[in-house]
Amino acid sequence: MSLPYTILILFIFSTSSSYLIPLAHSKIARLGISSKTLKNEPDGSTQKVDESDLKMYYFNQTLDHFTFTPESYMTFQQRYAIDSTHWGGAKANAPILAFLGEESSLDSDLAAIGFLRDNGPRLNALLVYIEHRYYGETMPFGSAEEALKNASTLGYLNAAQALADYAAILLHVKEKYSTNHSPIIVIGGSYGGMLAAWFRLKYPHIALGALASSAPLLYFEDTRPKFGYYYIVTKVFKEASERCYNTIRNSWKEIDRVAGKPNGLSILSKQFKTCDPLNGSFDIKDFLDTIYAEAVQYNRGPNFWVAKVCNAINANPPNRRYNLLDRIFAGVVALVGNRTCYDTKMFAQPTNNNIAWRWQSCSEIVMPVGYDKQDTMFPTAPFNMTSYIDGCKSYHGVTPRPHWITTYFGIQEVKLILQKFGSNIIFSNGLSDPYSVGGVLEDISDTLVAITTKNGSHCLDITLKSKEDPEWLVIQREKEIKVIDSWISTYQNDLRDLNMPV
Amino acid sequence: MSLPYTILILFIFSTSSSYLIPLAHSKIARLGISSKTLKNEPDGSTQKVDESDLKMYYFNQTLDHFTFTPESYMTFQQRYAIDSTHWGGAKANAPILAFLGEESSLDSDLAAIGFLRDNGPRLNALLVYIEHRYYGETMPFGSAEEALKNASTLGYLNAAQALADYAAILLHVKEKYSTNHSPIIVIGGSYGGMLAAWFRLKYPHIALGALASSAPLLYFEDTRPKFGYYYIVTKVFKEASERCYNTIRNSWKEIDRVAGKPNGLSILSKQFKTCDPLNGSFDIKDFLDTIYAEAVQYNRGPNFWVAKVCNAINANPPNRRYNLLDRIFAGVVALVGNRTCYDTKMFAQPTNNNIAWRWQSCSEIVMPVGYDKQDTMFPTAPFNMTSYIDGCKSYHGVTPRPHWITTYFGIQEVKLILQKFGSNIIFSNGLSDPYSVGGVLEDISDTLVAITTKNGSHCLDITLKSKEDPEWLVIQREKEIKVIDSWISTYQNDLRDLNMPV
Repeated sequence: MSLPYTILILFIFSTSSSYLIPLAHSKIARLGISSKTLKNEPDGSTQKVDESDLKMYYFNQTLDHFTFTPESYMTFQQRYAIDSTHWGGAKANAPILAFLGEESSLDSDLAAIGFLRDNGPRLNALLVYIEHRYYGETMPFGSAEEALKNASTLGYLNAAQALADYAAILLHVKEKYSTNHSPIIVIGGSYGGMLAAWFRLKYPHIALGALASSAPLLYFEDTRPKFGYYYIVTKVFKEASERCYNTIRNSWKEIDRVAGKPNGLSILSKQFKTCDPLNGSFDIKDFLDTIYAEAVQYNRGPNFWVAKVCNAINANPPNRRYNLLDRIFAGVVALVGNRTCYDTKMFAQPTNNNIAWRWQSCSEIVMPVGYDKQDTMFPTAPFNMTSYIDGCKSYHGVTPRPHWITTYFGIQEVKLILQKFGSNIIFSNGLSDPYSVGGVLEDISDTLVAITTKNGSHCLDITLKSKEDPEWLVIQREKEIKVIDSWISTYQNDLRDLNMPV
Repeated sequence: MSLPYTILILFIFSTSSSYLIPLAHSKIARLGISSKTLKNEPDGSTQKVDESDLKMYYFNQTLDHFTFTPESYMTFQQRYAIDSTHWGGAKANAPILAFLGEESSLDSDLAAIGFLRDNGPRLNALLVYIEHRYYGETMPFGSAEEALKNASTLGYLNAAQALADYAAILLHVKEKYSTNHSPIIVIGGSYGGMLAAWFRLKYPHIALGALASSAPLLYFEDTRPKFGYYYIVTKVFKEASERCYNTIRNSWKEIDRVAGKPNGLSILSKQFKTCDPLNGSFDIKDFLDTIYAEAVQYNRGPNFWVAKVCNAINANPPNRRYNLLDRIFAGVVALVGNRTCYDTKMFAQPTNNNIAWRWQSCSEIVMPVGYDKQDTMFPTAPFNMTSYIDGCKSYHGVTPRPHWITTYFGIQEVKLILQKFGSNIIFSNGLSDPYSVGGVLEDISDTLVAITTKNGSHCLDITLKSKEDPEWLVIQREKEIKVIDSWISTYQNDLRDLNMPV
């Protein structure tokens, strides 16, 4: 890890490529609901999902809700989908479940998210899925090329604007279905989980409650968690196999040692079958870091990545003796698959989603994720705000505002402050998800509820259910739906008490 | 009233000129803490106030908190004042009282507002007064001329940006005084009262509570009050003198009758001693409307305007016989004073404050105030959104967003919704203030408290106290401070329970 710090991209979604984008001398990492890099993850785009009940719509959205300059009045088409099959109707004030999109296209969200369709029939709910501005088809300025061009166009991509978009669409949907009093529950995962929680805090008159899955809401400059992201990555590897953990721990020095030899980078390139020549040992190290981190973040059935990679690293093949880097490479093959060559920059492609997310990471979603001093299997390199800011400046010409998120959303002091003004939020976290270190892990009040599972991975609870789900996952989801049900019941009682039609 | 509708400008402050600005074929009316037009109102600029304990500061404020375009990073100097004389200090977590400026200069706020200095010593509070962006000296773009030039520069003038300004300054003040846990109570009147309530709802992690004085929070398109502004104006006149009420009621037709004669406008002009020739009878009618409305809005000691104007209207002078319009003119003299001539456009001067406020009225603060069908002493002319929007378009080239305030702040359903997520707000209203029709007049919960007084006028409770204050006013203020005190006590107990330093 020659890099001074890491920008963790919240891989919120879709299932095929990581968001690791080199940013000057640093990297951006991952948030998301499922991995895009690991070889056998079910991929949203190929998975068979019955979407016949879904209808697609486009909403004429305001570019800038918070100024009134002539430019702010520009509009763009925001995509959203509705499934009304199971809805109980306006007369019954039947609920609305709304999935708030994150840094991903609506298509991949629709493929991966199961919470709405798995629970819609039971709750007689209208199901709404909304695409986040600047992702998928939802592009201001007429095209992705224009929207993602520079800071002048990207400037309108941020959480506050996205939340105001959601507010406008949800009010529009209520009007469209002539239902004044249907309670809305918003759901999101990872960065989208933060949006869901923030939406409940900022628009409680629109959302009755929120399910914030794997949302690292406290992973900001003013509320840094005691243990960092890589602490959990390491812990999960160590618990899976002490030997595997030690092999990885020792590999970084070995990589540097080989790189330091004459022709060292060529040797490394051959060892790891890289498609392109290496610029430095950091190319390999970043690549390995990313796949280990993703292996933990999405460590779940049918692929238990950490077991897979550790089995490969620990194995003794019959015909030859493995050296240390052979073992590490065997781990790569286990995670990424057998390929003719390996693109160490596969996480860093300048796709539309990656560009948009890097912008968000460089403007307000500044998560101070680094290789902290705690016992991790990575060389120490704590997050460095100064170089992070410098990287963003040189990349986008814009200075991050690392205190803005806590200034605007302000959940710094959970017990003293949030407990007093917040309500109806479920913070769900798998404790084996590295992002859980930045999550709300304890109940704050009767209606600010933390639901954690020891073995849960990133956003697992809101993905499609399956017959192979372990019992603890079934129980977790059942708990969540019961809490949501209780919010809805209380609300319906309030309606009755106020003599409003139920 | 030939005019189809009225834009009521919330006269928030200072004490010398009304904000009646002609806007195409309509007019903008008034919000504010004291009248600027009526002849003997104490004027902030001349009133003697001991400000020796106040220190002035300038904060480097971000132009646009909600986008990250290069332009958004422009900054301007925002003026604020601090009085730390009575502050109990950081160790005691002594409270901060923060006055959130409205559409007025800090100077006039400092002169008129008494609530902070009248209660600061008792609460050992730090006193902070902040000037609203685009008013007084707080001008983006380097000068008022630039700032108020057109929609491109005025576009950054709105409530959400102003609240974010206040958040940034209050966090800065806490840092400056090294006090993490001093509770902040925000206070504002009229439009500033709305800001105070909204601030508590949107930044509850920064403000522990809010005193919203005479804030017509429900006077928006989606939450129109049953009775309008002019219903109260009429009611107060009628209760003061049925004869006076009838005279005014009959005067509009008489004005039109005279205007319809050959040379009618000249006759009217002479009758009312206007400085300039009249463009139509509406010049006189708008002028009269405004001074009657202000007479009610600021009807308090030492000047009881309604009694004054009605005494003049009802009087029978010894030497001559009054006709109807003589009586009406006598009322004008009683309110505005004896002048060589009367400027009927005195409310409509394009001062900086007036231009800025008209912009706000034309972008988001769209209050549907009209002459409704209820029994008023004015000819019926209900608010007409279409012509309001047309007026704004032709004036500023910008289309109002009349639903934005309720979308963003959303206190439409007070009992069903606000009761569940809001806390620690005092809504204070004088029921003789025409704006009280749009206020929250009933308790919503134990901590969302309505304090009303039968005879109170606009923002009276937060003005400087005086020995001549009636007992009900003394009691009202005492109630308010007790409620605030209870919030602070509860908070200090919470701090103790959490073992935080108190």
